[in-house]
Amino acid sequence: MSDAQDHKKKMQQVQAEHRKKVSEKVDPGRGLVLINTGKGKGKSSAAFGVVVRALGWGQTVAVVQFIKGKWKSGERLFFEKHGLVTWHTMGEGFTWDTQDRERDIAAAKAAFGKARELMESGDYDLVVLDEINIALRYEYLSVDEVMDGLKARSDRTSVFLTGRDAPQELRDRADLVTEMTEEKHPFQAGIKAQRGVDF
Amino acid sequence: MSDAQDHKKKMQQVQAEHRKKVSEKVDPGRGLVLINTGKGKGKSSAAFGVVVRALGWGQTVAVVQFIKGKWKSGERLFFEKHGLVTWHTMGEGFTWDTQDRERDIAAAKAAFGKARELMESGDYDLVVLDEINIALRYEYLSVDEVMDGLKARSDRTSVFLTGRDAPQELRDRADLVTEMTEEKHPFQAGIKAQRGVDF
Repeated sequence: MSDAQDHKKKMQQVQAEHRKKVSEKVDPGRGLVLINTGKGKGKSSAAFGVVVRALGWGQTVAVVQFIKGKWKSGERLFFEKHGLVTWHTMGEGFTWDTQDRERDIAAAKAAFGKARELMESGDYDLVVLDEINIALRYEYLSVDEVMDGLKARSDRTSVFLTGRDAPQELRDRADLVTEMTEEKHPFQAGIKAQRGVDF
Repeated sequence: MSDAQDHKKKMQQVQAEHRKKVSEKVDPGRGLVLINTGKGKGKSSAAFGVVVRALGWGQTVAVVQFIKGKWKSGERLFFEKHGLVTWHTMGEGFTWDTQDRERDIAAAKAAFGKARELMESGDYDLVVLDEINIALRYEYLSVDEVMDGLKARSDRTSVFLTGRDAPQELRDRADLVTEMTEEKHPFQAGIKAQRGVDF
């Protein structure tokens, strides 16, 4: 058998296995719970990539940002300019900038109140809770209240939670957990954060 | 000292350390080489999130897709509709669908020829080479020719390479490498790929 025939046969097998695997999967008939966590870069940007994907299919999307309050970011500029996404930035900035725990807690609670409203409304295919894991890590929100919010959401709504240190209870509840692992980062080489790449 | 004062003091320290760290970083004066690899979900979507970020700052972006030729994807529908990105899908589909190694190699070479043109033109802040690592893994492209292409690119252009199994030589060359690790995937639970989430 020639190399070309060999390749063809192998690919036919792979194709058949792939088709079989796909045919066995079912539609869950409900939105998914998705988590991007870990120390590596790409947690929020992958969620925003999924926002683009959803918008491409004509789906409706809302974003609540829990931490990067005052920061100007490319994603926020883009989605606000094009008016395609319901966008709420309710954190007041990184916690080391506010330096006021009570104010941070109030901001996180208000943000999650808004998030609950969006998740329960039935108006959205996708709600992104950006950096919510950080609010959990600092105990500005409790895991229980976030679990309650997920449970109370509309069946049609997928929820994407981002930020490092996702708590185990949330991971157990999720349909997808990706851990972003940092193998190499420009910061290590003394390169500063780049507009368009990092924010 | 009260809890509030204690928190404030701690956050002031964190803020000072953060500012010091940031102030020591420099602008490289050139585009970066960025890699998302690993088996987990989020490699391409994180690159498309960075596309959004770049567009938000008014930067120019091109995308070359090496593998998902015939597939309709939300990201492609979105960016084509809004006409914001130079988009080339030059693969003819997954390799198990074409079943013709020579045709796959020709498609990969043509795609990389286009990619070189875009990277060298000086017209783009960001060029995404989506799933190029798969073309490398199947040896449709050589690592040397990709390294040459990166070397010949315009100084202003950052390049984002995605796909599992990024070769070591590319990792060594890159400014950023994130490994997406799959902790949990809906597929494992028998859930089929979801429009808006997976494609």
